[in-house]
Amino acid sequence: MVVILKPKTSTEEINKLTRDLESKGVTVNPVIGTELIILGLVGDTSKLDPCYIEANPYVERVMHVQEHFKKANRMFHPEDSIIDVNGNTIGGRKISVIAGPCSVETEEQIITVAKDVKKYGASFLRGGAFKPRTSPYSFQGLKYDGLELLKIAREQTGLPIVTEIMSPYDIEVFNENVDVIQVGARNMQNFDLLKELGKTNKTILLKRGLSATIEELLMSAEYIMAGGNENVILCERGIRTFETYTRNTLDLSAIPAIKKLSHLPVIVDPSHAAGKWWMVEPLAKAAVAVGADGLIIEVHNDPQKAWCDGQQSIKPELFSNIMDDLRIIAEAVGREI
Amino acid sequence: MVVILKPKTSTEEINKLTRDLESKGVTVNPVIGTELIILGLVGDTSKLDPCYIEANPYVERVMHVQEHFKKANRMFHPEDSIIDVNGNTIGGRKISVIAGPCSVETEEQIITVAKDVKKYGASFLRGGAFKPRTSPYSFQGLKYDGLELLKIAREQTGLPIVTEIMSPYDIEVFNENVDVIQVGARNMQNFDLLKELGKTNKTILLKRGLSATIEELLMSAEYIMAGGNENVILCERGIRTFETYTRNTLDLSAIPAIKKLSHLPVIVDPSHAAGKWWMVEPLAKAAVAVGADGLIIEVHNDPQKAWCDGQQSIKPELFSNIMDDLRIIAEAVGREI
Amino acid sequence: MVVILKPKTSTEEINKLTRDLESKGVTVNPVIGTELIILGLVGDTSKLDPCYIEANPYVERVMHVQEHFKKANRMFHPEDSIIDVNGNTIGGRKISVIAGPCSVETEEQIITVAKDVKKYGASFLRGGAFKPRTSPYSFQGLKYDGLELLKIAREQTGLPIVTEIMSPYDIEVFNENVDVIQVGARNMQNFDLLKELGKTNKTILLKRGLSATIEELLMSAEYIMAGGNENVILCERGIRTFETYTRNTLDLSAIPAIKKLSHLPVIVDPSHAAGKWWMVEPLAKAAVAVGADGLIIEVHNDPQKAWCDGQQSIKPELFSNIMDDLRIIAEAVGREI
Amino acid sequence: MVVILKPKTSTEEINKLTRDLESKGVTVNPVIGTELIILGLVGDTSKLDPCYIEANPYVERVMHVQEHFKKANRMFHPEDSIIDVNGNTIGGRKISVIAGPCSVETEEQIITVAKDVKKYGASFLRGGAFKPRTSPYSFQGLKYDGLELLKIAREQTGLPIVTEIMSPYDIEVFNENVDVIQVGARNMQNFDLLKELGKTNKTILLKRGLSATIEELLMSAEYIMAGGNENVILCERGIRTFETYTRNTLDLSAIPAIKKLSHLPVIVDPSHAAGKWWMVEPLAKAAVAVGADGLIIEVHNDPQKAWCDGQQSIKPELFSNIMDDLRIIAEAVGREI
Repeated sequence: MVVILKPKTSTEEINKLTRDLESKGVTVNPVIGTELIILGLVGDTSKLDPCYIEANPYVERVMHVQEHFKKANRMFHPEDSIIDVNGNTIGGRKISVIAGPCSVETEEQIITVAKDVKKYGASFLRGGAFKPRTSPYSFQGLKYDGLELLKIAREQTGLPIVTEIMSPYDIEVFNENVDVIQVGARNMQNFDLLKELGKTNKTILLKRGLSATIEELLMSAEYIMAGGNENVILCERGIRTFETYTRNTLDLSAIPAIKKLSHLPVIVDPSHAAGKWWMVEPLAKAAVAVGADGLIIEVHNDPQKAWCDGQQSIKPELFSNIMDDLRIIAEAVGREI
Repeated sequence: MVVILKPKTSTEEINKLTRDLESKGVTVNPVIGTELIILGLVGDTSKLDPCYIEANPYVERVMHVQEHFKKANRMFHPEDSIIDVNGNTIGGRKISVIAGPCSVETEEQIITVAKDVKKYGASFLRGGAFKPRTSPYSFQGLKYDGLELLKIAREQTGLPIVTEIMSPYDIEVFNENVDVIQVGARNMQNFDLLKELGKTNKTILLKRGLSATIEELLMSAEYIMAGGNENVILCERGIRTFETYTRNTLDLSAIPAIKKLSHLPVIVDPSHAAGKWWMVEPLAKAAVAVGADGLIIEVHNDPQKAWCDGQQSIKPELFSNIMDDLRIIAEAVGREI
Repeated sequence: MVVILKPKTSTEEINKLTRDLESKGVTVNPVIGTELIILGLVGDTSKLDPCYIEANPYVERVMHVQEHFKKANRMFHPEDSIIDVNGNTIGGRKISVIAGPCSVETEEQIITVAKDVKKYGASFLRGGAFKPRTSPYSFQGLKYDGLELLKIAREQTGLPIVTEIMSPYDIEVFNENVDVIQVGARNMQNFDLLKELGKTNKTILLKRGLSATIEELLMSAEYIMAGGNENVILCERGIRTFETYTRNTLDLSAIPAIKKLSHLPVIVDPSHAAGKWWMVEPLAKAAVAVGADGLIIEVHNDPQKAWCDGQQSIKPELFSNIMDDLRIIAEAVGREI
Repeated sequence: MVVILKPKTSTEEINKLTRDLESKGVTVNPVIGTELIILGLVGDTSKLDPCYIEANPYVERVMHVQEHFKKANRMFHPEDSIIDVNGNTIGGRKISVIAGPCSVETEEQIITVAKDVKKYGASFLRGGAFKPRTSPYSFQGLKYDGLELLKIAREQTGLPIVTEIMSPYDIEVFNENVDVIQVGARNMQNFDLLKELGKTNKTILLKRGLSATIEELLMSAEYIMAGGNENVILCERGIRTFETYTRNTLDLSAIPAIKKLSHLPVIVDPSHAAGKWWMVEPLAKAAVAVGADGLIIEVHNDPQKAWCDGQQSIKPELFSNIMDDLRIIAEAVGREI
C-alpha cells in the first residue's frame, strides 16, 4: 500500500501517522521529496482499511498495490483450478458448454431442449426456475415446480443442472436438488447470500454484475471462498456502458485479465450480453478464442414462443452448427470441446 | 407499445402477429409504409413481455411508450406523496435531513453524534449496523449490537433511526426495532428482499443502484409497492461512470426526472456519491436547489478515527454550518428545513 | 510518481531501472519489502512518459501522484483567475450568464433574443454559426453569415458574443469578429485546434468532452495555456453514461473538483446536459448552489420553430423567472448575478 | 420515424402537427388510443430534424426507426465493400494485418520493424508521425520527418503506409505521401476534418471514438462518404467504461453489429484497447473469431525503449507466433490471412 501525503506535511505529522500505522502491524518506509511525500507500507496490509487512512487530513490519497483477494488470487495458487461437478469438469483443457432455455416452462420443453443440447455436445443443462425480472408484473419463473422439472430432465439426460438462486431461504433446497447454483449479476454483491453459499459445498457459478469491476467480481468470489467453499466458477456476461445497440457490452478482455489475476475458471455468456440471438455465434467463437473455460448459451426449441428472452435464444440446429465451429477454434487455441 | 416490423414483412405475417397480440388483450393499429411497418399497440400492455414479441423474426424492435411502473407513477397519483415516520414527514414542503455516522461504533459515539445532529437540525439518525463491504475481510458492522446502540440513541434524542438491511432473515428484527429500513445500492435489484419488504408496513429508503437507470429504480420501488407497502423514499447516491476523481458521479438531474415521473419523495446522499468530505457542502446545497426532498449526510464526531468511510464524513461543526446555509437555499426554492 | 515493481525483481534490475530513471533527472527512492517493491520518484517528473516506464517488464504499474497540468494548476496559482472580456468578467464574485439561441437563424431572431436576454440579466450572447451535427444531412449553421448576424446583435445590445469554432481555418475570422471562442465537447481533444488557439489572445470557452475526465479537461486547457493564451473558461456540459432519460449526465461534482484543482473559472451548461427545457431551471439553480462561476443557457423566442435543439431551449419569459430565482441562490452562496 | 404525443393531446393539435409534418414531405399515420397517441411517419424522414419535432410541447418523444446513414448502410448496398489500396485489399475473404510501431522514431527503427512485420505476414505498415497526446508536454511525434521515414520504409518493403492525420492543414501532404489516412478516436467527430477528407480519394481508416456509439461511428463514416469518398475502413479500438483494469473496453460485439448495419470493412485494434502487450494475443484471436476484416497491431523491435506506448507493443517474435495462430482461427471462420 502506498500513502501519498499532502506536500508540506510536517515531520511531526508524518511521524505520528507512521507510528499509528506501525501499531497496526505494517512497516512504514517514508520517501520524502520537496513536492512529494510517500509512505510505502510493507507487510500484511489486507486488514488495513484504506478509508481509515484517507480520513487523516494530511493524506492526499491511498493507492493499492496488491489485490485484496487471497483465496482467489493466482499469486498464492499458481495452477488453474479445475472444478468437478459429478464427473464433469470446468477449468481444464476441455471447454465446457452449459446450454438450455432461459426459463423452465413445461416438462416437454425442458426435456426436449435437454436432449437436444446433450446430443450436440453440451455437458450441463441450464434453465431458470426463479427469474430476476426488472418488473414485478413480469413472469417470475415456475419456482419450485421448475426445479422439479429440471430434475426430471437431469434424470433423462444425465446432464447436471445449473439454475439461479435468488434468496438465502432457498439454499437448502438448492443444495439438495441442483448441481451448480448460479448467482445472477444483480446479486453479485448480495454479500449475505454469498456468505451463506460459502458455507455449502456446492459449485457456485458467479456472474459479474452489470457495473462490477473485475476486482469486485474477484472480491465477491472471495466472499464465498472465505467461507470455505472454493468451488467457484466466474462468468462474464456483459457490462453496462453507454452503447445501446447491444443490451450490454461483452467485455472479453476480462477473460485474459481474470486468468492472470486468479486461478478460478471463467466462462462467457454470449446470450445475455448482446441480447440478440444472431450475435451468439460470433461472440461464442470469440469467447473460445480469447481463452474462456466454457460458455453458457440459451437454447430454446421454439424461441418465438419462449416465455422470456426469446430474442436471445437460439434453436437447437443453430446450436449444433455453432458447436461444430467451436471445436475447430478450440483446437486452434490448444483446447477441446 | 410500438412494434417495428422488418421492411417487406408480408401481409400474412403482419396479420398473424396482429391476431397473436390481440389474443393477449391489446388493440393493434398497423401503419404500413414502403420502408416502414409499425404496429401501434393500444390497451393494457403492461403484461405484454417485450422480449416475447422481439423473438418473432419479423420484428425489428419493440419500443416502450409508457412507463412500466403503476403504483409509483405520477400519472396515476398526481400529488406528491408525503411519508410520515413517527410524526416526522418526508416529501412535503419541509426538507428532511438524515444524519449520523457511517457505522455505529460505540454507545458513546452514536449518542454524541445523535445529540449533535439533532441540535443542528437533523430529524432522523442514520448509522450502519450491518455494513455491505466489498471485501469479506473488512469490518462488517456491529450487527444486532449496533441496532441496540441505535435504539439507545433514539431513546435519548427522540430521533427516528434509519439503518440498512442486508438479509431477508432480518426483516422481523428490523420491523420491530428500526423506523426506516434502508435498502443499499448493491441490493436495489435484490428482488427477493424487495418483495419481502413489500409485505411490511415500514418506511423503506431505497437507494439507487450504482448502474441503475432512473426507470429501474422506480421499478424496484414498484416491487415494494406492489406488495402493499407504499411507504417508499427514493435516494440518489451517485452512479458509476468513467470519471474516477469522485467515487461515483452524483446524478442530480435524476431529481427533477423522478419528480416528473413519480410522486414518491426523493432524497440525495452527497457523502457516498463523492466520497470526499469537502464535497458534501457544495453537493448538499445543489441537492436542495435542484429540488430534493431531503438529504442523508454522514457526520462523525471524529472522522479520523471512524471505523469506515472517515474520508467522507464531516464533523458536527461543519454540519451545523452547512445546515445554516441550506436554510437560505431552501427558502429560495420555496422550501424550508 | 510512484513505480511499483513486480515482486521478486532482482536487485540488479532495480539498480538498472534506477540508473535509467535518474539519468532522466529525477531522484529515485526505493522501498523494498518482501511482497512489495516501490520506487518513489522525486523531482520534475512531468517530462517522464509513464508508458516508457511501464514498457519495462519488471514494472507492475506506474502511479501518478501529481497532476500533469502546470499552468492550469491551482497549486502554482492559488487565487481564482478572473477573465475580462470587454469589461465583462468571468470568475470573480459575479456569476456570469451567457444566453442565446442554439443556432443563429435570422437577423430578427438573434436581435430579439439578444435584447431579451440582456434585459433579464445575461452579460454575454451565445449563438451557433458553425454547428457540429452528428449527421452530415442536418442543418450545419449559417456559418459566416451567422457571424455577421451575431455582430449586428452585439452592436445593438453591447453584449459580447460567444460562438463555436470548428476548424483551425477559421481562427483568423473568429479572432477578428467574436469575443469568446467556444471549443465544443467533440473538439475538446482536437489538439491541433487547441494549439492554434493557444497562439491567440482571445478568451476560449472550453467545453468538457462527453467522455473526458476532469483531468483530461484540464490537460486540454493546458494545451491552450502552454501556447501562451491563459484566457480559458471551462464548461461542464454533461458526460455520457448509461442513463438515457437525460441526453447526458450533468456532473455537478466536477465544479468543486475543478475549483480545487485549478484556478480557472468554470461554468455550467444545463441546456445541453439534460436536453430537456424543463430541466434547465432546477439544474441552473443547482449549478449556482454548487459554486459555478457562470451559466450558458439556450434561450429562443420561439423554441417550437427553432432550427435545432428546440426541445432544450427556454423562452425569454422563463429565462427571466429563472434569473430572479438565481439571484437569491447566488446570494445564499456569497455570490451575485 | 415514430412520434409519441402526450396523452390527451387534442384532435386540433394532432391535426396541426400532422399538417406541419406533411408540409415537410412525409406521410403521417395517426394511431389514437386512450392512453397512447402515436404518429407513424412514412417517407423520407432523413431530413426531418427530430429535435424540431420534440420542441413541440405536445410531443412526448420521437423514436427513430431507420438508421440515419445512407451511403454506409447495408440496406442500400447489400454486398461487403472491398477497399483496394495499391493492390492490397481490406474487406474480402482475406484478413488484413496492419502492423508497426506506435511512433516513428528513427530510420533504423522503422525499417527494421517494417521488414519484420512484412516477413511475418502484415500487409500494411503503421507508424505515428503526428501523435495526439493528452499532455502538451509529451512527445508529439516526428511530424513531417516521420512521414519521410515512413516513405523510406515503404520503398524498402513495398508495404503501403497507414498514419494518423491531426489537422486539415496536412491533408494535401498526406494525400500525396501516405496510402491510408487514419482518423484517430479523439477526432472521430471532428466534422470539419471529416468533410475535408471526403473531398479526397484516399482510403480513410476511421477509429471509433472513446464514447461513440456504433451509430455515431457510422454517421462519421457518412460524413466522409457524403463528400464523395467511399473508401472508408472502420476500426473498433475500445470504448471508455467504468472498468479500469484495461485502458479501454474492447467492444467486440461491435463487429457483428457493424457487419449487419453496414457494408464497410471493420478492423480491430487490440493494442490500444487493452493497453497491455500480453492481451494483444488473446484479443487478436477473438477479433478474428468474431468476424473482423483485419487487425492493427503495435509492433516494436525494442518496446522497453519505445518513445511511447511501449507497454502495449509486442516484439516481432511474438507477432510472428500470433500470426501463425491467427491463420488457423481465420480458416475456422472461413477466412484467410
